[in-house]
Amino acid sequence: MLRFENDYTQGACKEVLQALTQTNMDATPGYGKDEYCERARERIRELCACPEADVHFLVGGTQTNQTVIAAALRPYQGVLSADSGHIQTHETGAIEATGHRVMALPTPDGKLRASQIEQAVRAHFGDSNAEHTVQPGMVYISLPTENGGLYTLEELKEISETCHKAGLYLYLDGARLGYGLAAAQDGLCLRDLAALCDAFYIGGTKQGALFGEALVLTAPALKKDFRYHIKQRGGMLAKGRLLGVQFLALLEDGAYFAYSRNAMERARELAEGLKERGVSLLYPQETNQLFPILTKAQAEALEKHASYSFWCAMEDGNVCVRLCTSWATTPEQVQQLLSYID
Amino acid sequence: MLRFENDYTQGACKEVLQALTQTNMDATPGYGKDEYCERARERIRELCACPEADVHFLVGGTQTNQTVIAAALRPYQGVLSADSGHIQTHETGAIEATGHRVMALPTPDGKLRASQIEQAVRAHFGDSNAEHTVQPGMVYISLPTENGGLYTLEELKEISETCHKAGLYLYLDGARLGYGLAAAQDGLCLRDLAALCDAFYIGGTKQGALFGEALVLTAPALKKDFRYHIKQRGGMLAKGRLLGVQFLALLEDGAYFAYSRNAMERARELAEGLKERGVSLLYPQETNQLFPILTKAQAEALEKHASYSFWCAMEDGNVCVRLCTSWATTPEQVQQLLSYID
Amino acid sequence: MLRFENDYTQGACKEVLQALTQTNMDATPGYGKDEYCERARERIRELCACPEADVHFLVGGTQTNQTVIAAALRPYQGVLSADSGHIQTHETGAIEATGHRVMALPTPDGKLRASQIEQAVRAHFGDSNAEHTVQPGMVYISLPTENGGLYTLEELKEISETCHKAGLYLYLDGARLGYGLAAAQDGLCLRDLAALCDAFYIGGTKQGALFGEALVLTAPALKKDFRYHIKQRGGMLAKGRLLGVQFLALLEDGAYFAYSRNAMERARELAEGLKERGVSLLYPQETNQLFPILTKAQAEALEKHASYSFWCAMEDGNVCVRLCTSWATTPEQVQQLLSYID
Amino acid sequence: MLRFENDYTQGACKEVLQALTQTNMDATPGYGKDEYCERARERIRELCACPEADVHFLVGGTQTNQTVIAAALRPYQGVLSADSGHIQTHETGAIEATGHRVMALPTPDGKLRASQIEQAVRAHFGDSNAEHTVQPGMVYISLPTENGGLYTLEELKEISETCHKAGLYLYLDGARLGYGLAAAQDGLCLRDLAALCDAFYIGGTKQGALFGEALVLTAPALKKDFRYHIKQRGGMLAKGRLLGVQFLALLEDGAYFAYSRNAMERARELAEGLKERGVSLLYPQETNQLFPILTKAQAEALEKHASYSFWCAMEDGNVCVRLCTSWATTPEQVQQLLSYID
Repeated sequence: MLRFENDYTQGACKEVLQALTQTNMDATPGYGKDEYCERARERIRELCACPEADVHFLVGGTQTNQTVIAAALRPYQGVLSADSGHIQTHETGAIEATGHRVMALPTPDGKLRASQIEQAVRAHFGDSNAEHTVQPGMVYISLPTENGGLYTLEELKEISETCHKAGLYLYLDGARLGYGLAAAQDGLCLRDLAALCDAFYIGGTKQGALFGEALVLTAPALKKDFRYHIKQRGGMLAKGRLLGVQFLALLEDGAYFAYSRNAMERARELAEGLKERGVSLLYPQETNQLFPILTKAQAEALEKHASYSFWCAMEDGNVCVRLCTSWATTPEQVQQLLSYID
Repeated sequence: MLRFENDYTQGACKEVLQALTQTNMDATPGYGKDEYCERARERIRELCACPEADVHFLVGGTQTNQTVIAAALRPYQGVLSADSGHIQTHETGAIEATGHRVMALPTPDGKLRASQIEQAVRAHFGDSNAEHTVQPGMVYISLPTENGGLYTLEELKEISETCHKAGLYLYLDGARLGYGLAAAQDGLCLRDLAALCDAFYIGGTKQGALFGEALVLTAPALKKDFRYHIKQRGGMLAKGRLLGVQFLALLEDGAYFAYSRNAMERARELAEGLKERGVSLLYPQETNQLFPILTKAQAEALEKHASYSFWCAMEDGNVCVRLCTSWATTPEQVQQLLSYID
Repeated sequence: MLRFENDYTQGACKEVLQALTQTNMDATPGYGKDEYCERARERIRELCACPEADVHFLVGGTQTNQTVIAAALRPYQGVLSADSGHIQTHETGAIEATGHRVMALPTPDGKLRASQIEQAVRAHFGDSNAEHTVQPGMVYISLPTENGGLYTLEELKEISETCHKAGLYLYLDGARLGYGLAAAQDGLCLRDLAALCDAFYIGGTKQGALFGEALVLTAPALKKDFRYHIKQRGGMLAKGRLLGVQFLALLEDGAYFAYSRNAMERARELAEGLKERGVSLLYPQETNQLFPILTKAQAEALEKHASYSFWCAMEDGNVCVRLCTSWATTPEQVQQLLSYID
Repeated sequence: MLRFENDYTQGACKEVLQALTQTNMDATPGYGKDEYCERARERIRELCACPEADVHFLVGGTQTNQTVIAAALRPYQGVLSADSGHIQTHETGAIEATGHRVMALPTPDGKLRASQIEQAVRAHFGDSNAEHTVQPGMVYISLPTENGGLYTLEELKEISETCHKAGLYLYLDGARLGYGLAAAQDGLCLRDLAALCDAFYIGGTKQGALFGEALVLTAPALKKDFRYHIKQRGGMLAKGRLLGVQFLALLEDGAYFAYSRNAMERARELAEGLKERGVSLLYPQETNQLFPILTKAQAEALEKHASYSFWCAMEDGNVCVRLCTSWATTPEQVQQLLSYID
């Protein structure tokens, strides 16, 4: 069965697997205090042009989101998010489990606007009974968004400025960050994110690692005692070096970016093929997630040969599904997938 | 200054004050284990025609909501509410502070529909990845609603049935319950609520008591160890008998209902007076909260003589404000208020 | 039945009741934003000789403890307490419910020592894997302690200095503060507490009010947005002026201190009477709580006429019970109680 | 540098690494819904002789403890543990972060006694004000304990019976379970644990896996909706099959047990060698953790060649350290380590 339902159906890229194998019998200190982690942290600071950043490695995205957000907020604060944001839709209330509201705002396309943030801030702090309501303390955005969209550098600058003028932290969920950066048309890069965000993570799980996310903290106030937060939330891996080894393999010689480009090329081939077949997309293809609208017949036919994610039912009876390319997708797989759609 | 901004600007009705004074030097056991509380509980069970109900007295509404909801939900569950519900809008995230999401649904008028609940339930339990999302575990409704509306008995029956078919608890916030029952045109009474809800409270604070809410639990599973929940959430009053004494004074001879009728009569006089002055209301007047739309000039003139709550700015530059009558409002006060509006 | 089981068996002192009655029909803003609260806050700042202190009124002790401690601690921090501290023994895990550990330390007499705090701090911060353990962030002490003991001014100074050198907040639970100050032999007064503690509360519930505790915050970092914390934890009374009115009545002309002295005089008469009857005490009588050790026969005889709290079983078969005098105890009641013991 | 500070300094055993490599490019569904996980679950049920057990795979121990305990307890309940238990000493308050107290009991040797549990239960439920105190809801024990001790089958039976008579869950932390079972002199095996415990986990991280713990739930009430808990606590691995693949490799042909025996043989050689050198142990050697008491000179000399964990300072100036053997320790390494001690 061809699997296009997400970008984490397979194991790790060869660089990662090889590095894990080669270092397997090394004996190192635990909990990320080893040399591999230290080198990976150094490499990330270098790529971010941010020597004073703190870098931590966690196992997965929900864990990372929960840990950062709970560390940043005061008990009475909440986090502003698009209502399509992962923390709102697919983390089983992990943020609320730490005591904080996800303050979900509607968007047409999964992208928060600076003006929405401004309005939420004004509404709260302008209220003479503000203490009866949840105070916004952080903004959460995803790059790419949950439906494959991209913020431009300009948009990010505006959001960052709005947040910081209002005293809110800006946190960027980069579960698919490499794909986002590879797709950006305006040169958006890690250095920009380090300059604009207070915290963001470079996703490994969906981009060639077995698992792992690299969290970059730039705001001084967030750095203090952050390892306590990780440990308390169950995110401190005993064999922490596994995360350092993987990120080192991905970032040392640019494999991460090369694999990201592969996913984008496959995504464009897929988009083109769908267009040729007259299949329209719910959102414009920008990154590695595509949302074709299929007839019921097409969807059922496809299902026999390839897996996809159900996205939503359309009003006319058609169905929108999600297809993902990944670091590992081959041109042949794309063509094969297309051959099942007509 | 005339105060119409809410229904808790004044102390207690004479029956309550007198009872507190008369019993003041009695020495009783603490924490609600006294005879006054026991008699008040008995009286409430009688009024509810529900001899097996558990009745607990708490000090305020937010505390009661937080305690009941946290007691009822499993860690991964949330509570469905109208997005205008008090737990969503005015409790500073008290529900989230206990680890649970308020799952806010939009309504045109502050009233949840059975069909919305059904849809939320279907969306959740029909999802093959349901465990990635918050599970609805309870429905929260307010009677009257936060904008003064009323559920009919029929609507409540439908909601109750929908909840119980889906395995959800139904909880009714009765901060202004007396006013709601006094306003009901279909005979809705405490017995109905006891039959339809798993938990609800009879508000005292806004209806003649100094403070206090009487929580009625009918669902057997909610009753177990409930006093632990109250104590843990800081809601167990040392001199618990103060709550029993007050509810006994209010309910023994029907003062609670008489005062509620007073508030409704005053509300109707106020509505009529506003109509005569050509002032329209944002929502139809149903209970003791009125939402007149004033011109800026009217609002500013009024402000000099009487307090009100700002509700929202209208698109045409007018302002909607909230005016409340209460157990203590006199016909003279209503006429005086009206005299400031022209 | 004579009730000596605690110091909150009765209502309010006459000054409080009268003030509540006189102000009953005043209409004021809610949530503590009224003039009575403002005057009471001013009076407390004056008594504390601390014009920049923030003063908040809450309903009860558990609520106050929970709100202050949760506001002060970072998620990975805990609060050091004697293992006999109220937050450890009698609040149903209210502190843990906000996510924080009570770090209980053993003491012979309910009083934490500065050296214990120092040792806990050293053990934590000296650990190279400190992030795997709970970080102490605050010290909680009670004055008087839960078994009626008193810290001296010297001891408090030493604890305060130790806390502040280590970066820990010092919080003092003053549920019976008036009794403690009235009993102090070294002139300990509110000004000292304001100078030494970051937060403490002046207990009303057990000292002549119907209910209510006055929280004094002196540490600037604790003041920020504190009303949000109170609201979120369910502690913001709608008719907040009830608290202001009561504390004003208690503190305006010194009634609070006079009633405290009454309790102390009664306690000394009771101690003397017990001694005359050959009854020994588990702890030396210092404040208004006494812990006589009775034979089973004595305890059973007493039980028929007067209520007490069971404290603990002694190894020799005797029982230790708790007897409390209060603001309301009369010399006659003490003598009557004594007459039941022989 | 020789590393004996813990049993997770190295990667995975060859069976695990090979299985990960061989399955690396397989494309499977995520989140543990793949065939490898299913087969591993089946194998574990078989080894436990418990076909109706639910088996879940999580990444690490703190995460597993936090998830199980928070899922099992009601908000006002706590978990009884030896005060040396991992949840009390080395998880940064992860249990409290979910709202629950660790009710730590002192033990001479890290092993809870059934009689202690009984006494805690009696003290709580026999208290007429029980609702003012934390209710015990679960018992947490570790096998082996944190200082390398072992419960006998008899002791486990007694604890299990005590728990179940009192309505408490019994949960066993098996971070080093294989080593414990390999060391047991009384035939203790997985079947016994499945019969006696409501939940326990089979540790992978410290016993040949890269990471991963296999949680076995036998109590029906714990099984419901458990995947929600895992997701909410951040413990649901996207590439969940990595856990299934590893446990399958470990358990299919008994590698797990063989490696456990290796650790035990090395531990005995080490114990013997230490004895020959006149080095005494703080606790008798039972499993793979050894606690030799070294002179300062010995400790400093050893430090140059081999890493160990500092355990505690002895009163006479000596130091107790922890040395661990593991699945990977060779006889040569043990002899080399011993050669550095004299």
